[in-house]
Amino acid sequence: MKRFRILSGMRPTGPLHLGHLHGVLKNWLSFQENHECFYFVADWHALTTEYDSPQKLRGFVKELFLEWLSVGLSPEKSVIFLQSAVKEHAELSLIFSMITPVAWLERNPTYKDMVQNLQNKDLTTYGFLGYPVLQAADILIYKAEKVPVGLDQVPHLELTREIARRFNYLYGTEFFPEPEALLSEVPKIPGTDGRKMSKSYGNAIFLNDPPEVVKKKVLSYVTDIHRPRKSDPGDPENRCVAYNLIKIYFSEEERQEVVEDCKKAKLGCVECKQRLASKVIEELTEIWERRFEIEKANWEELLQVGIEKARSIAKKTMEEVNELLGFSYKF
Amino acid sequence: MKRFRILSGMRPTGPLHLGHLHGVLKNWLSFQENHECFYFVADWHALTTEYDSPQKLRGFVKELFLEWLSVGLSPEKSVIFLQSAVKEHAELSLIFSMITPVAWLERNPTYKDMVQNLQNKDLTTYGFLGYPVLQAADILIYKAEKVPVGLDQVPHLELTREIARRFNYLYGTEFFPEPEALLSEVPKIPGTDGRKMSKSYGNAIFLNDPPEVVKKKVLSYVTDIHRPRKSDPGDPENRCVAYNLIKIYFSEEERQEVVEDCKKAKLGCVECKQRLASKVIEELTEIWERRFEIEKANWEELLQVGIEKARSIAKKTMEEVNELLGFSYKF
Repeated sequence: MKRFRILSGMRPTGPLHLGHLHGVLKNWLSFQENHECFYFVADWHALTTEYDSPQKLRGFVKELFLEWLSVGLSPEKSVIFLQSAVKEHAELSLIFSMITPVAWLERNPTYKDMVQNLQNKDLTTYGFLGYPVLQAADILIYKAEKVPVGLDQVPHLELTREIARRFNYLYGTEFFPEPEALLSEVPKIPGTDGRKMSKSYGNAIFLNDPPEVVKKKVLSYVTDIHRPRKSDPGDPENRCVAYNLIKIYFSEEERQEVVEDCKKAKLGCVECKQRLASKVIEELTEIWERRFEIEKANWEELLQVGIEKARSIAKKTMEEVNELLGFSYKF
Repeated sequence: MKRFRILSGMRPTGPLHLGHLHGVLKNWLSFQENHECFYFVADWHALTTEYDSPQKLRGFVKELFLEWLSVGLSPEKSVIFLQSAVKEHAELSLIFSMITPVAWLERNPTYKDMVQNLQNKDLTTYGFLGYPVLQAADILIYKAEKVPVGLDQVPHLELTREIARRFNYLYGTEFFPEPEALLSEVPKIPGTDGRKMSKSYGNAIFLNDPPEVVKKKVLSYVTDIHRPRKSDPGDPENRCVAYNLIKIYFSEEERQEVVEDCKKAKLGCVECKQRLASKVIEELTEIWERRFEIEKANWEELLQVGIEKARSIAKKTMEEVNELLGFSYKF
């Protein structure tokens, strides 16, 4: 199996939930076993939307790192770092800004969407318009080859590829590789109300919810509404929201048994969701226990190695870029 | 006399001429005697327009520093430095980008002018649109109080003031001072053809022109076209292009004498311009001699002190800014 350099990041904007765990972090965990992974907390990106109250990001940054380490991301296996701790991202972003047509940014489909969707916030800033430029710097400064993205993020990555191509074309090199999307199948993680799990919908099970809250939330999942009584046969595959979690948390054998018992009206929804809650709590308990250990250490110290590593690579790339541009002096 | 912190910069885009000497550098020289001055070569700014051939900037950067030192700017009296050697400019620029509305940049009157005027070059880039943001970072990172500008640059400085105000408002501080324009009377320096002296008009007398070229260029100045013969009385104040240089290079007494002799048809234009050429060469000789001495040293070493000084101030400002934003970590 070829070992790729993979890079991905998350904005520190609040606590993680099961959607992040199964949609993103489980992939990251598997990548770190076989690839060279760079995972970073994108605090400068968070500033594009949270510029009016940046102080609150501080807690989110720490919390995000703690949660990453708690789910099993390892500072020994992966390069885990903070974007704003590697100043070279800002320098490369500035250089890329010179070769990026404004039109490329204006046609970015998510730009207009977000400006319209977040109407209580003025996002028509220069920094928000340019966040794909910063993103290109984040990725290319490490010459990452693969970037795990959701389908909706493919246009952003395409912009990074265009910037890499333009740089290579203008300066007559094959300096930056064009990073490729690593599209992973992401399981559907519904929230308690059946919609996609999301902090802003208020339907999320957070990794740091206490056990009794997790249990309560799991029990509140909508099951088969055409099955008011336990004695009615159910249709979990087609009508039960909780079934999406059952597919994740139950073994294949258990899942088949539950489906059969539901269809035969032998297993009631409450009991079924109690079993599911136990499984979820079982998994989260591992995370909580790891977190308990991690909190004994100084989180900034835990990440020092990753940050040093990221810095040294970023510094080297910038030396090479400045050499290419003729911007290398003895100062 | 109050001692102000003054900041100004030049883009390294070619050799300096008498227009720069009398329009800008003479002011800088007088400032450095009484104020704390920061003068920088704006190589990242030059990249906004020269991104397609950045390597050529390298020679211009060195040449600009040598010329500055040759005219008398002193690395002991002033902080003389290179923009790209102080990476914190890029970091502060990135942070300012988050709080700068795109509309402020789009309404910048010189943006549209330049995009239209430089039609052989695509300037509709993100970096070119945002150069006033980088400029604000250049100025505010040193908390400069005064910025020498021409009248046409006042809108740029106003943008810097607006960014300072917005930062102070958003983060509840009086952190950045609002820098004020230092409008100096700039003498009119015509080129050999009577238009404003400019490299692109091909009408400039460069500081590094050899004496015989200076003489030839001075002699080619248009004088009073209504005075074809020496025996015709002239009207230097109203009709002689060279007179603008005579006002600069001749003492008041000499000037009066020349005007009188011209009006009385006692002094011919060729002789008059020969005298002027001698004066110009006399002044340039001082510059050439200083340059001869300077070239014995290593130019990068000469500037090391200024760059260290600029870096230490910029670093401190960024520490304070990151503290204000909550972006200060132990990494």
